Amino acid sequence: MTATVQRSPRNGVDVPTLFATLDAVKGAPEIAQFQFRAHNEWVSGTHSRSVIQGFYGAGQEDTSRTDPFAFDADHPAVLVGSNQGPTPVEFLLHAIATCLTAGLANIAAARGITLRRVSSTVEGDIDLLGVFGLSEVARNGYRQIRVHFDVEGDASPEELAALVEQSRRRSAVYDVLVNGTDVQIDVSTPVKPS
Amino acid sequence: MTATVQRSPRNGVDVPTLFATLDAVKGAPEIAQFQFRAHNEWVSGTHSRSVIQGFYGAGQEDTSRTDPFAFDADHPAVLVGSNQGPTPVEFLLHAIATCLTAGLANIAAARGITLRRVSSTVEGDIDLLGVFGLSEVARNGYRQIRVHFDVEGDASPEELAALVEQSRRRSAVYDVLVNGTDVQIDVSTPVKPS
Repeated sequence: MTATVQRSPRNGVDVPTLFATLDAVKGAPEIAQFQFRAHNEWVSGTHSRSVIQGFYGAGQEDTSRTDPFAFDADHPAVLVGSNQGPTPVEFLLHAIATCLTAGLANIAAARGITLRRVSSTVEGDIDLLGVFGLSEVARNGYRQIRVHFDVEGDASPEELAALVEQSRRRSAVYDVLVNGTDVQIDVSTPVKPS
Repeated sequence: MTATVQRSPRNGVDVPTLFATLDAVKGAPEIAQFQFRAHNEWVSGTHSRSVIQGFYGAGQEDTSRTDPFAFDADHPAVLVGSNQGPTPVEFLLHAIATCLTAGLANIAAARGITLRRVSSTVEGDIDLLGVFGLSEVARNGYRQIRVHFDVEGDASPEELAALVEQSRRRSAVYDVLVNGTDVQIDVSTPVKPS
């Protein structure tokens, strides 16, 4: 048996370039070192705004994003916010859905499977007694996150489900959400000259 | 000594309502059970879009968000994407910045500290050899996330730094990113009637 690798564009994925990129990384593993960044400014109350644009990767600063991306976050009214954006924890749900979906499309293309539709619904259960400091047992974060995928494409149900499983195995966001990572925080308190 | 609790609005935080909310939760802890959600649709290649609107909390479905929030994510050109949004992992950086900042503003208001400016820069280091499946040792997710805060306000440097520390102790996103959580994934493969 020979593994079949499809090298034609599919699902909007430039498969030849994808494989060329993998080959380039195999030849120079140091180009796989990336640093992503976000800059946030507090607006008022629980409302703040992040700007995301530059990152380091493939041996250089990226300049391909000509315009910055900007996102607001806030608490809802019931949590004494002003609804200027989703809550921070909802962005975690967006992150896991988009990471798994991007991987799924890449893997499907590499396997020669044409996708018709991929949608997902993510739910996260959280007991805010933790955040409120009102419980000795409730954690601050989500107790559980559930991701439900609907995948339609030109392959058997087993092959379509296997795309999600392989995407999970290679997902950066899944890894962080399940296994955690090192988070370091430091603070400067600039004093304005009088 | 008596702890001083400030109950006037400050920093855009409605402190009286914040304390009233805490009192309500103390009296009926079951209202602290929340469920947040996101719905994602694949667009093309690594580009997908999430919609975030409804959630369950305080004993009912929230209806205060009259318009849905929508966010794109994509891979950059160097990772064979089309730059239609930030990468999924960058949304994790946005999530931690906004969660810590929202908490900080609430805590400052409760402590009677007026903030002038709060900004933060988040960096995440990741070795994509993991995601590419080209390393036995590199993990898929971030190796480390660093958050640097600049906090200006009417308090001593120690008091301002303590706001960040208390926000970290009560942050839902920090907890998930550091400690991980349970993530469950399932798949349906709808077959269209012929």
